[in-house]
Amino acid sequence: MSEVRVAILGASGYTGAELVRLLAGHPEFRITVMTGDRKAGQPLASVFPHLGKLKLPDLVAIGDVDFGAVDAVFCCLPHGTTQEVIAGLPEHVTVVDLSADFRLTSLDAYATWYGHPHKAPELQKKAVYGLTELKRDAIRSAQLVANPGCYPTSVQLPLVPLIKAGLIQVDDIIIDAKSGTSGAGRSAKEANLYCEVTEGIHPYGVASHRHAPEIEQELGEAAGKPVLVAFTPHLMPMSRGMLSTIYVKLAKGAKAADLRAELSRVYASEPFVGVLPEGAVPATRHVRGSNFCLINAFDDRLPGRAIITSVIDNLVKGASGQALQNLNLMFGLPETTNLEQQPLFP
Amino acid sequence: MSEVRVAILGASGYTGAELVRLLAGHPEFRITVMTGDRKAGQPLASVFPHLGKLKLPDLVAIGDVDFGAVDAVFCCLPHGTTQEVIAGLPEHVTVVDLSADFRLTSLDAYATWYGHPHKAPELQKKAVYGLTELKRDAIRSAQLVANPGCYPTSVQLPLVPLIKAGLIQVDDIIIDAKSGTSGAGRSAKEANLYCEVTEGIHPYGVASHRHAPEIEQELGEAAGKPVLVAFTPHLMPMSRGMLSTIYVKLAKGAKAADLRAELSRVYASEPFVGVLPEGAVPATRHVRGSNFCLINAFDDRLPGRAIITSVIDNLVKGASGQALQNLNLMFGLPETTNLEQQPLFP
Amino acid sequence: MSEVRVAILGASGYTGAELVRLLAGHPEFRITVMTGDRKAGQPLASVFPHLGKLKLPDLVAIGDVDFGAVDAVFCCLPHGTTQEVIAGLPEHVTVVDLSADFRLTSLDAYATWYGHPHKAPELQKKAVYGLTELKRDAIRSAQLVANPGCYPTSVQLPLVPLIKAGLIQVDDIIIDAKSGTSGAGRSAKEANLYCEVTEGIHPYGVASHRHAPEIEQELGEAAGKPVLVAFTPHLMPMSRGMLSTIYVKLAKGAKAADLRAELSRVYASEPFVGVLPEGAVPATRHVRGSNFCLINAFDDRLPGRAIITSVIDNLVKGASGQALQNLNLMFGLPETTNLEQQPLFP
Amino acid sequence: MSEVRVAILGASGYTGAELVRLLAGHPEFRITVMTGDRKAGQPLASVFPHLGKLKLPDLVAIGDVDFGAVDAVFCCLPHGTTQEVIAGLPEHVTVVDLSADFRLTSLDAYATWYGHPHKAPELQKKAVYGLTELKRDAIRSAQLVANPGCYPTSVQLPLVPLIKAGLIQVDDIIIDAKSGTSGAGRSAKEANLYCEVTEGIHPYGVASHRHAPEIEQELGEAAGKPVLVAFTPHLMPMSRGMLSTIYVKLAKGAKAADLRAELSRVYASEPFVGVLPEGAVPATRHVRGSNFCLINAFDDRLPGRAIITSVIDNLVKGASGQALQNLNLMFGLPETTNLEQQPLFP
Repeated sequence: MSEVRVAILGASGYTGAELVRLLAGHPEFRITVMTGDRKAGQPLASVFPHLGKLKLPDLVAIGDVDFGAVDAVFCCLPHGTTQEVIAGLPEHVTVVDLSADFRLTSLDAYATWYGHPHKAPELQKKAVYGLTELKRDAIRSAQLVANPGCYPTSVQLPLVPLIKAGLIQVDDIIIDAKSGTSGAGRSAKEANLYCEVTEGIHPYGVASHRHAPEIEQELGEAAGKPVLVAFTPHLMPMSRGMLSTIYVKLAKGAKAADLRAELSRVYASEPFVGVLPEGAVPATRHVRGSNFCLINAFDDRLPGRAIITSVIDNLVKGASGQALQNLNLMFGLPETTNLEQQPLFP
Repeated sequence: MSEVRVAILGASGYTGAELVRLLAGHPEFRITVMTGDRKAGQPLASVFPHLGKLKLPDLVAIGDVDFGAVDAVFCCLPHGTTQEVIAGLPEHVTVVDLSADFRLTSLDAYATWYGHPHKAPELQKKAVYGLTELKRDAIRSAQLVANPGCYPTSVQLPLVPLIKAGLIQVDDIIIDAKSGTSGAGRSAKEANLYCEVTEGIHPYGVASHRHAPEIEQELGEAAGKPVLVAFTPHLMPMSRGMLSTIYVKLAKGAKAADLRAELSRVYASEPFVGVLPEGAVPATRHVRGSNFCLINAFDDRLPGRAIITSVIDNLVKGASGQALQNLNLMFGLPETTNLEQQPLFP
Repeated sequence: MSEVRVAILGASGYTGAELVRLLAGHPEFRITVMTGDRKAGQPLASVFPHLGKLKLPDLVAIGDVDFGAVDAVFCCLPHGTTQEVIAGLPEHVTVVDLSADFRLTSLDAYATWYGHPHKAPELQKKAVYGLTELKRDAIRSAQLVANPGCYPTSVQLPLVPLIKAGLIQVDDIIIDAKSGTSGAGRSAKEANLYCEVTEGIHPYGVASHRHAPEIEQELGEAAGKPVLVAFTPHLMPMSRGMLSTIYVKLAKGAKAADLRAELSRVYASEPFVGVLPEGAVPATRHVRGSNFCLINAFDDRLPGRAIITSVIDNLVKGASGQALQNLNLMFGLPETTNLEQQPLFP
Repeated sequence: MSEVRVAILGASGYTGAELVRLLAGHPEFRITVMTGDRKAGQPLASVFPHLGKLKLPDLVAIGDVDFGAVDAVFCCLPHGTTQEVIAGLPEHVTVVDLSADFRLTSLDAYATWYGHPHKAPELQKKAVYGLTELKRDAIRSAQLVANPGCYPTSVQLPLVPLIKAGLIQVDDIIIDAKSGTSGAGRSAKEANLYCEVTEGIHPYGVASHRHAPEIEQELGEAAGKPVLVAFTPHLMPMSRGMLSTIYVKLAKGAKAADLRAELSRVYASEPFVGVLPEGAVPATRHVRGSNFCLINAFDDRLPGRAIITSVIDNLVKGASGQALQNLNLMFGLPETTNLEQQPLFP
């Protein structure tokens, strides 16, 4: 295989920087274009000094990119701006889109949650939802992958196999989710200042977060019928990490041990998903900087209920790491290529 | 009233230090004794330099205290060691116990959860559970108050009035709770080292935390029948603060607005409990260092369900602040005496 | 004394909020006006929910204030905008200005460091520099106090008495200073986002920070001759707190013990300044939320040199606390009025 | 080359875990032994869950190791316990010692600072001080490398070349250093609890830290005469990262630009040392998780003085990363082998 020329659109945000980190030293993919409209002309080192040792092209405006010389695109643009950009790409370009623009298959749902009609409905039909472990075959042959949201990734990895196996009921799924602040991006907002975030916690988007319909879509597909979920995200005083604590009703007779057994079976050979031993609690710091997802299940005090927990790094398995995992797959490479960094702890 | 001579037993821990902070400048209560067995003979400033400007007696061993010269005791000793100490106090001494030793009215429940029979069952019968806003009259005339746990405080303040009003169902209460690390105390454990806690989160004591039976006891009393709850605590990378996110089934026809209305009515004249306006989310940093509890309720996406959130500072309303609130009450003072510090933010 | 009507100009920033916190329950001062141009018409609770339990007037635009009904003003406006506002106040109004606008007595120095000529040079002549412990008499009779910067406060409290006593040389003073992030204010800047600040440190404004001339002015006054200092501030991953580590040459024959003795003598009866025992290190967390300054001195390994350390809370003794201390003084009240909160730890 | 069998002695501490992280996927080195006396028999995953996905041997007691089957040893044991262990190893074993036991060439200095005579003086003579960039040739042929301390690494990288070039004076070097808490290790001490460290800073070991003689030894070697330094370490509320802010007198006529030029020249081809452009400040977060050291120099306000800053990750270039860099060198591999991870930010 000759080297794949990769463009990162929106390289001045956290998911863009994370892609640069994960691509460093990749044996097949080479970053040839990075865009950042407000930073055009600057070296990436002036935007992200931690990447200053890498040899990289300067940032350019998206309008100045020659996409004829690009084989693959990671699209890290804000939600809503992405559709037209991707619609304008040449046909030969392979795309992994990290925005929410192509995640909802229902154009009505998209319009409801994002406040405007979808601008590229034809493309939407072709997009493949990129939860790698669950959609591997479709991703392999896709030209446009809609990379999942971080919360949906942390929720679907444990729940989809359990729903498919009929081990949990789908009418009363309660998801209490907690995310590091990097999920809010790098734009300068008062609410995300250090002093506003450190040493405190709060919920946000209660019962109204845009990841709820994405979760419901995928759980519904697994269940074969519509699913509604309770979903409450919380902002945590940490940069990275995501924990979903999920309260479910068990199928009749099932116990947490059955959930653990099924998840262990399904994910036995997965390089990035781990099911912990009985009683061990997943901690976000044990996946920091890595593409891992750790899962466990516990019997609840409420009879017939279980508590499922899963952790990921929201910027890796919840965004850029899964995006690279998908692009590896789309180019016929081992999924794990350049993704085997161990977590950084402490 | 002549000055009340107050002893703090176990002043070398966080709740002890917090009592010293809250008592500084109190118009009626004067600290005359502080114990710390391993630190006996030392000034408090050597254990807690931040309190070095206060004029205070040195730490003494508990065996050396003349309780005849003490009017009131705050007991901040570890769970399990407290019963015998309190049983040995002279009759005239008023006690607020911050440990868990007298919270469970069922001696069987105590033995089950704490692993040994209760050592002062007669005293247990006299103990009054000290959730101030909910038990004010009984506390006023009590000689021994069992100060509630931090998690139970954060849960009962919103739930008890709603259960009493019949606005929520009691068979499916799911509590996802998050606590600052000071709740784990000051003892040196690897799990609580800075590097083990910062920038990460995890659940602990899943379905097995000792605050569950305390919550169930009090909710059951409000409901007039036994109540079981799902209860999952999580450790947060912050020193102080506690958030309970509570998922409940509504009574038929009820909405979150009804919960808010009832809580607003019940707590209208309470100095320390606030019900936020529709849509506003409680944040722990907005109660840091204060005795406040902030509450709100939201309609869930799941029909017939609501999400209730409440925040406290675990060391203040969740421990030492409520203890002082109770002692104020027991001595006929305004509850708010010396407790009106505003939260510290940022 | 009848109640003093106090206005806080710029109440939507951190120093404004801190003034509100410190003024809550003040026996003589009552907040009757709070301005916040972009938030005019809003209750303070919408800007600072942690203050939502206080009864306060809504925010107004500064142009709408009737200063005839105001007795005293805390001015928390950005540097450079303050001069014209204060120049326009009625004569009867007492002012404590927390900006840098009136700190530099040399109009040339002001123009050099702030990039434009001073706009109220007549007022500048009347302004009194408000380092309370060092300028108490002048402050008592001042109508306009220029409240010192946080770094200068932390440096002058230890150095000015030592320079006056001739115990240290003034030609080689090296100040390595570290500040919490609240010193950067509440404006939304990428550099102050949580993810940019947490778990990391860096110097800034190396050899070019605007607090250097303020420090040099006051040390020069103490020395009776011009003084230059090395001054390197660093941004710390914490909200509050400031530590200055100061490297000085001793006068011939002097030792750290002499410095400690002199500082202990000078500050013996000061309520807010503490000199620690030999070997004890000041820590910012031991003054958090309080108006205290803690100081110590150590012999250096380099012969003839000493290391002096001092800590304050940058928002209290470094800003709003000292401002209140000054206004207390200007109105003939005990300096400590409403300022005796103990530090919040942990 | 056949695979090198590597033992990590003391794998249950932070430097041990960091070695495991950095060795994962190494093309030539394979971990065949890990010791942890108190954890013997346990899998590493029970001690460090973040490494649970790696295939590794269980922990064993050091007394049970067959060193005949080991080619190289990383020694991460506590200071003072290491000498006898290393003295007992078979002759064929190559050693990188991360403790302080072999860093001081003067046995007198060792006895003075560590409180007991050195137990392996013959070995001490053979040990090579392992600051890779400065001692590369000696390291290449060494059998025992004394891996430098974290503070000394951050100080020597900028200062040694400048001293050798005669650009700075050596009689008045003032080092204000700041370290993340992981430098204190994983042992359970009250002082290192989350609540004791977060949101605050303090100096420690003022003028008495054991890294001072190590720094002085190496700077003295560069200067060709004895050197004393002022050295004040500070504990920072962050897990990783180290910043040294160094105040120096310039040689006559020299400016910061000359320092930058010399450092740029010396380190032009070094993969792990970067000299930043004029005015850019090194930040610890820009080297987190990597083996990089970033340096810059600034003219001071004090005439004839400069301020030099350098940052490293104390666990990587300050410990385990440099240890691997050294072992790579000792086995004839490219120094960068498996060390090219980019920093983790945010």
